[in-house]
Amino acid sequence: MIIAGSQPANFITMITDFGIKDGNVGVMKGVIWGIAPHTQIADLSHTVQPQNVREAALILFRAMPYFPPGTVHLVVVDPGVGTERRPIAARLGPYKVVGPDNGFITLALEYAEQQHWPIRFVHLDQPQYWLPQVSHVFHGRDIFAPVAAYLSDGLLELALGPVIEDPVRLQLPRPERTPTGWRGEIIHVDHFGNLSTNIRIEHLGDMPGAIVRLGGVEIRGMVKTFGERAPGELVALYGSTGNLIVSVVNGSAAARLGAAVGDAVEVGVG
Amino acid sequence: MIIAGSQPANFITMITDFGIKDGNVGVMKGVIWGIAPHTQIADLSHTVQPQNVREAALILFRAMPYFPPGTVHLVVVDPGVGTERRPIAARLGPYKVVGPDNGFITLALEYAEQQHWPIRFVHLDQPQYWLPQVSHVFHGRDIFAPVAAYLSDGLLELALGPVIEDPVRLQLPRPERTPTGWRGEIIHVDHFGNLSTNIRIEHLGDMPGAIVRLGGVEIRGMVKTFGERAPGELVALYGSTGNLIVSVVNGSAAARLGAAVGDAVEVGVG
Amino acid sequence: MIIAGSQPANFITMITDFGIKDGNVGVMKGVIWGIAPHTQIADLSHTVQPQNVREAALILFRAMPYFPPGTVHLVVVDPGVGTERRPIAARLGPYKVVGPDNGFITLALEYAEQQHWPIRFVHLDQPQYWLPQVSHVFHGRDIFAPVAAYLSDGLLELALGPVIEDPVRLQLPRPERTPTGWRGEIIHVDHFGNLSTNIRIEHLGDMPGAIVRLGGVEIRGMVKTFGERAPGELVALYGSTGNLIVSVVNGSAAARLGAAVGDAVEVGVG
Repeated sequence: MIIAGSQPANFITMITDFGIKDGNVGVMKGVIWGIAPHTQIADLSHTVQPQNVREAALILFRAMPYFPPGTVHLVVVDPGVGTERRPIAARLGPYKVVGPDNGFITLALEYAEQQHWPIRFVHLDQPQYWLPQVSHVFHGRDIFAPVAAYLSDGLLELALGPVIEDPVRLQLPRPERTPTGWRGEIIHVDHFGNLSTNIRIEHLGDMPGAIVRLGGVEIRGMVKTFGERAPGELVALYGSTGNLIVSVVNGSAAARLGAAVGDAVEVGVG
Repeated sequence: MIIAGSQPANFITMITDFGIKDGNVGVMKGVIWGIAPHTQIADLSHTVQPQNVREAALILFRAMPYFPPGTVHLVVVDPGVGTERRPIAARLGPYKVVGPDNGFITLALEYAEQQHWPIRFVHLDQPQYWLPQVSHVFHGRDIFAPVAAYLSDGLLELALGPVIEDPVRLQLPRPERTPTGWRGEIIHVDHFGNLSTNIRIEHLGDMPGAIVRLGGVEIRGMVKTFGERAPGELVALYGSTGNLIVSVVNGSAAARLGAAVGDAVEVGVG
Repeated sequence: MIIAGSQPANFITMITDFGIKDGNVGVMKGVIWGIAPHTQIADLSHTVQPQNVREAALILFRAMPYFPPGTVHLVVVDPGVGTERRPIAARLGPYKVVGPDNGFITLALEYAEQQHWPIRFVHLDQPQYWLPQVSHVFHGRDIFAPVAAYLSDGLLELALGPVIEDPVRLQLPRPERTPTGWRGEIIHVDHFGNLSTNIRIEHLGDMPGAIVRLGGVEIRGMVKTFGERAPGELVALYGSTGNLIVSVVNGSAAARLGAAVGDAVEVGVG
């Protein structure tokens, strides 16, 4: 039992592809609390599709700015565990981010650049901040969880290893202009079956008369929220982080259209 | 990092239909901790069937009284998000409840009335307690999470908006008397496949000789617990909150009987 | 609201087969926080296969030593709830463990014995440490959660009931020597489809030339980590807790081989 006269409020979020049945996520929390016992931990997702770094990037980007300054975001989707891929930590303005250098940070980093936040990357090479024994297959437990805990506890990232300037960035599909609008693709299918695209409000602006085409169907006009149409109707609208989404009111657009990540979407005025 | 000399123990529970893969639940926790950093948060369920307000009502009712006084129960199953449906907060005796005014509170409210607890509802209309930007599609993050955090932190519900007297109540199926007992229906199928009915111990009392009929089968006599019968046997008993349930010992009654929510159940003495 | 001048950092982990949709896990957290409000709780797994005590034993064993001293491990996979099976608490060195006396503790106990930790078991029979009303079907909420909270808060296990010397132990399959190596079996299939066996590094040591046979296939040689081979290749390696595992790089060995818990595995040098 650890007694302290006053506790800081520290926060760590977790994104992994470990699933929720085997106890591996919980083990990482045990490691964190052994170092930073008063840390509050939020599970963002542990059901990222195995090895899908791009999905992790999207979840991190959407969640990051809603957390208090000082929050450490811990992301372990790590197909290269135990190989030469670098373990890294980053400072992105008010946040710290920890994980394998495989591009999961791409969207969060772009956001930080747009905000003109101070940014710094380090290559984790100081084993005194890791567990004493490091396995070849579970760096989430042995390297990333302890490093996240030390960062959450106030350790400066510069203590963790040398600065690097070349973090891996994913090549992500960008929407393209067409004569009458934009062509993009589906980048996420959520729990409800809503289809999120990489076309954003910054591309389209308010286009109440826009026509959205995907999967052989055409949606004429955008709505502001689901409840404007009857249950079962197909609608296009902006999601809560500004992406164009296609939904079925109280239903699943993914099921209705047989749509999946990577499918093309076009938006135009005629 | 926020330092405080002493921390209250605040509690928030969450019920949503958001699923666990997209990060939306975690985002709400980030918003809560930005306002009330020492709040402990319990996930009750995030896999409520999409838009199933009745299921949320049942989970809230079963869980509410087991939490410490002062706990805020945050429920976001919200098919009407962005429409005219009101965002509300309620005081139910020692608890606060926050969510959309769609009837999710019905069973918890009836319980509070039975307990003669003080009850007050308010219509949330004070944006200073919301996030600065409110989307049309994610009030869980933008309105309900911050309001829950302020309540958890000690804000009085009266600060959040005008008192209302007419919260939406669900019309829920009630069991009916029959010549020899009661007729009710299945209201929940749990993770194990146990079938929970709306017939309660208050209706039946101790009826060891009761005959339970559903799905074409007849169960003669009730047991006190699963282990009284052999694995695979169909049994009727009272569940942990007083509802009559039908189970298969170490198995699934839902699978065995092909039963679902809404199916009729009869209990009698002959 | 409970104010305290200083808070200990208390930790409880939870393993159940309750699933995540019905709110029962959350209810147990409410009970815990009513007694020990500053306890941090880590979910290890709530999707243990129903009534699979052996799976719970494995998850507990793998997770236990990664938690801070003083952590209470609460395990409720309880096919015998409400019958004569004893509710127990144990001290295993720096940890406390609580649950039904059905063998879930077997592997953790063996580990404690190997470490020469002080060990003590008690039979929970002091209802003043339980909820006032104890149901026949939910001892997780009514007995085990409150007992775990009191232990987490510093109560000595001796207060909870008389010492017992004969906790139930599972009969677990042990690997056997063969002329050229070891014969064991698959004991766990994880979220990724990795096959974990009961053959351990203590049996084999470093055997880079080992041949692993299971499900009609033969894997020649072991690797240190997944990334040493191309995606889709079948590999044998040591998992993060020292068990021999069989994996498909970036894929599922369980799906590839149609393998399941209990299947035979042989390892030899020729």
